[in-house]
Amino acid sequence: MYGHNGRVTTHPAPSPTQTDDCRPSLTVSPLSLDDAQDFARIFKAVADPTRLRLVSLVAAHEQQEACVCDLTEPVGLGQPTVSHHLKILVDAGVLHREKRGIWSYYSLEADTLNRLSAFLSPE
Amino acid sequence: MYGHNGRVTTHPAPSPTQTDDCRPSLTVSPLSLDDAQDFARIFKAVADPTRLRLVSLVAAHEQQEACVCDLTEPVGLGQPTVSHHLKILVDAGVLHREKRGIWSYYSLEADTLNRLSAFLSPE
Repeated sequence: MYGHNGRVTTHPAPSPTQTDDCRPSLTVSPLSLDDAQDFARIFKAVADPTRLRLVSLVAAHEQQEACVCDLTEPVGLGQPTVSHHLKILVDAGVLHREKRGIWSYYSLEADTLNRLSAFLSPE
Repeated sequence: MYGHNGRVTTHPAPSPTQTDDCRPSLTVSPLSLDDAQDFARIFKAVADPTRLRLVSLVAAHEQQEACVCDLTEPVGLGQPTVSHHLKILVDAGVLHREKRGIWSYYSLEADTLNRLSAFLSPE
């Protein structure tokens, strides 16, 4: 669902109308089991203090992208551990990974964050 | 929408200014460890398909509140299991519990959902 190919997803960012009309919301009607499992999987990826800090560090980094070498020192963890956390965030569609040369660069998946935010909004 | 009868919370909903100025955001600046731990704790509570369905069932129920007896059948689980999940949601501040007579009634903590939604919004 969140697969990428050179920053192209199969689910383009929705218009506000699409968000209001089609996307599941936690507070509008009872969730289907499929939707509940889908959102629980993404929330599980962000339900960790280190992973939340990694997302915020990527967002605050120059051009809103960072490589693992930029992230190890701020979170005080080694590269293998940070890479493990980043993989979980990429697999959940919260971060996007792009390989350039010998480094992978991570950036936000704004569509996923918008989707989570709209899902939780009680308005 | 959430200020129904008998529903007094200790956390009034913030004004938009408070949300913009004072509350942590995932994408505005690097999160402190305290904020990361605080939000990770709440996300952990909702990172479960059954608990997400329980929240959505409470929201969709008459007057946006429900007792455990209203919730067991829709999720197909026994009362002790449902009560366990509801306790996790109450402890995380996602649901509010109010005892009336022999039953406890659960309703949404709109302030917590607004806080999570604003935290995740990349805009």
